[in-house]
Amino acid sequence: MRCEVVAVGTELLLGQIVDTNSSWIGEQLALAGIDSFFQTKVGDNLDRMVEALETALDRSDAVIVTGGLGPTQDDITREAIARVMGVELVRSPELVEKITAMFGSRGRQMTANNLRQADLPEGARANPVQPGTAPGLICEVDRGGSTPRMIYAVPGVPWEMREQMSGAVLPDLKARAGILSVIKSRTLRSWGRSESGLAEDLDGEIQRLDRTGTATIAFLASGWEGIKVRITAKAEDEATVDEILDTEQARVMEIIGDSVFGFDDDTMESVVLDELRRRGLTLGLAESLTGGLIGSRITAVPGCSDVFRGGVIPYDRRLKIEVLGTPDIPAVSEQMAVELAEGARRVLGCDVALAVTGVAGPTPHEGQDPGTVWIGTSINGHTDATLIKFPYDRERVRQLTCISALSFLRHRLLAAD
Amino acid sequence: MRCEVVAVGTELLLGQIVDTNSSWIGEQLALAGIDSFFQTKVGDNLDRMVEALETALDRSDAVIVTGGLGPTQDDITREAIARVMGVELVRSPELVEKITAMFGSRGRQMTANNLRQADLPEGARANPVQPGTAPGLICEVDRGGSTPRMIYAVPGVPWEMREQMSGAVLPDLKARAGILSVIKSRTLRSWGRSESGLAEDLDGEIQRLDRTGTATIAFLASGWEGIKVRITAKAEDEATVDEILDTEQARVMEIIGDSVFGFDDDTMESVVLDELRRRGLTLGLAESLTGGLIGSRITAVPGCSDVFRGGVIPYDRRLKIEVLGTPDIPAVSEQMAVELAEGARRVLGCDVALAVTGVAGPTPHEGQDPGTVWIGTSINGHTDATLIKFPYDRERVRQLTCISALSFLRHRLLAAD
Repeated sequence: MRCEVVAVGTELLLGQIVDTNSSWIGEQLALAGIDSFFQTKVGDNLDRMVEALETALDRSDAVIVTGGLGPTQDDITREAIARVMGVELVRSPELVEKITAMFGSRGRQMTANNLRQADLPEGARANPVQPGTAPGLICEVDRGGSTPRMIYAVPGVPWEMREQMSGAVLPDLKARAGILSVIKSRTLRSWGRSESGLAEDLDGEIQRLDRTGTATIAFLASGWEGIKVRITAKAEDEATVDEILDTEQARVMEIIGDSVFGFDDDTMESVVLDELRRRGLTLGLAESLTGGLIGSRITAVPGCSDVFRGGVIPYDRRLKIEVLGTPDIPAVSEQMAVELAEGARRVLGCDVALAVTGVAGPTPHEGQDPGTVWIGTSINGHTDATLIKFPYDRERVRQLTCISALSFLRHRLLAAD
Repeated sequence: MRCEVVAVGTELLLGQIVDTNSSWIGEQLALAGIDSFFQTKVGDNLDRMVEALETALDRSDAVIVTGGLGPTQDDITREAIARVMGVELVRSPELVEKITAMFGSRGRQMTANNLRQADLPEGARANPVQPGTAPGLICEVDRGGSTPRMIYAVPGVPWEMREQMSGAVLPDLKARAGILSVIKSRTLRSWGRSESGLAEDLDGEIQRLDRTGTATIAFLASGWEGIKVRITAKAEDEATVDEILDTEQARVMEIIGDSVFGFDDDTMESVVLDELRRRGLTLGLAESLTGGLIGSRITAVPGCSDVFRGGVIPYDRRLKIEVLGTPDIPAVSEQMAVELAEGARRVLGCDVALAVTGVAGPTPHEGQDPGTVWIGTSINGHTDATLIKFPYDRERVRQLTCISALSFLRHRLLAAD
């Protein structure tokens, strides 16, 4: 089974919107075990949409079209599919009723245009999953083969697209492809190692898996979020897949566990909050260099308020002295990192404090090069500091400092047990 | 002249990397006045790359291929183009010399693989702009027409791609298309208005431009960054274009100027910093709800330190009282927003303070709904506050609070003059 993706929208071609839908769909197809070799973007133009769909159907068994299902005159995915199928559009009374009811329940005004969304190419059916007003389409296209080729149309609005994909399109595709097996994956989040270093360490295990075929290991470089190590397994039922993943995860953790800080949806900040919560410790911050970036990431985590007390952003050197009570010493130094952490712990009344001070760039500061960063921690008064040098631009220095500081604190917490 | 884009890389199809290169190229082509109707993504597979290039050349005059120019065995864009041209790859002595010299000057080890980057399809030439080790390709392909069709290959590394595009590919395309005119655009950054509201206000002006053809106006919804209003003009030389843009900008500003906070690369934070700098005022923050987000955006602006003194993140209610000296009153209230601003101004020793307090969600707090936000300002002791209710999720509430707070401060500064 080969499936490709066509994303519709002139704004995609003009670069006004980046097409993240196709990326997400591509990832889901790969996880489902369905080959996908091409992705195409095309504007809101009937002839060219038909051309793109024809080209896609010529070389693949199924096509997922995203976008162009809205109520305006620009939204012509329905028309393009009808043309490819050689049929007319027919207004579905069920969809008219559904859409009318949706507007009613949300107290919104329905225009005549909205009923265009109730049109179906003759012979097509609506996707049973419909979280918004745009119905998706499931269309069998006769191209002379023993089985029909498929066109699935899903909305361009990302969350509507995802629900329709997961709830109906992927299961239908898998059923047609005869994929009875369950494919699941687990992601190990690593930090502080290069992709090639991890690959070297896991080389033996990867070779073993190549021979046995029980699972696969893939590396996903994720910029300043570190390297993700993804284990994927396939089996006849969910329980067996989970068992394989558990076993394989344990093996991988034995080899690279030191570099793994979390799993799946964990982030460095959620993991640090969990470690603190487990120990009943509260957290405070002193962010000079990062100016609030660490705090903003921590407070993005719902429920952080049981652990996180707050922070100080002593950007100006006088605030380091006046608000956090540090001595009048160079701002970018080991002692300052420690004094900031101790000052934050004292002033904020928390058990644990994390401090960063350094030079974000682009110019040197106090004779120190851009990218020179000191990180300090205080855990119940036990202080520690480390120096890191990032040879990068301002944005990367700040982002890498943020995750490096949280990682340093995590290691200090583990070491303090 | 029609030009389309082919992005090469299996990681793009698997969704491991989002293809932002094609979006950027699409935008540049539109700005240059070159039609672009399709964009395709294809994996690192020779047959399918050739297929994608053939399809693109059949329907367009030129193709820009991005990616697959690296030194590894996966990088086969050179091979695919040679196959489409029906020629062999030839190693270029000039490129060998250039690449060898680059490695030498950077003190890096060159492997034999790196010399693959010196291979050119016979008859092709290297892009004269080469900021990295990967040379771009400029290839004329004879398809039987009166003029050759073009394939331009540029690296997948974004900054290398951009330099090669701007420095050589776009000028070459424009020359071949006979585009002698200069197209430039100017972006007005607006905040606080809907796209339809702005469009309604500008309707008369847009209709006037439709008749005269001197310029065009487009709206770009940019999520929590507001709506961008882009004026684009075309003329025979740069001076004339600039004159048209100046005139048109003045007209548009007369109509929607109240909602416009900046131009082109301005951000709300850079504009607020400029307004403060102009008045010789220093800034401090008290960020309860946003936890450092405003500070992180402000400190992302190079050179902010002459204005920005720092901030306090009084996430826990006790810190509001203990560190910023507020009375013991409800955290989400008008008085608290004002007290936080005054407290920040006093404790941080700055002229101007901006404070936010509210409920990010997902659950209510102190009986207030998620999305309830108070913003407070103190400008030399003159305080002000405003209430906003955002019916959105945690992340959007935080981000919208951030830009709304900066916008509120900007208006207070303007009003205080």
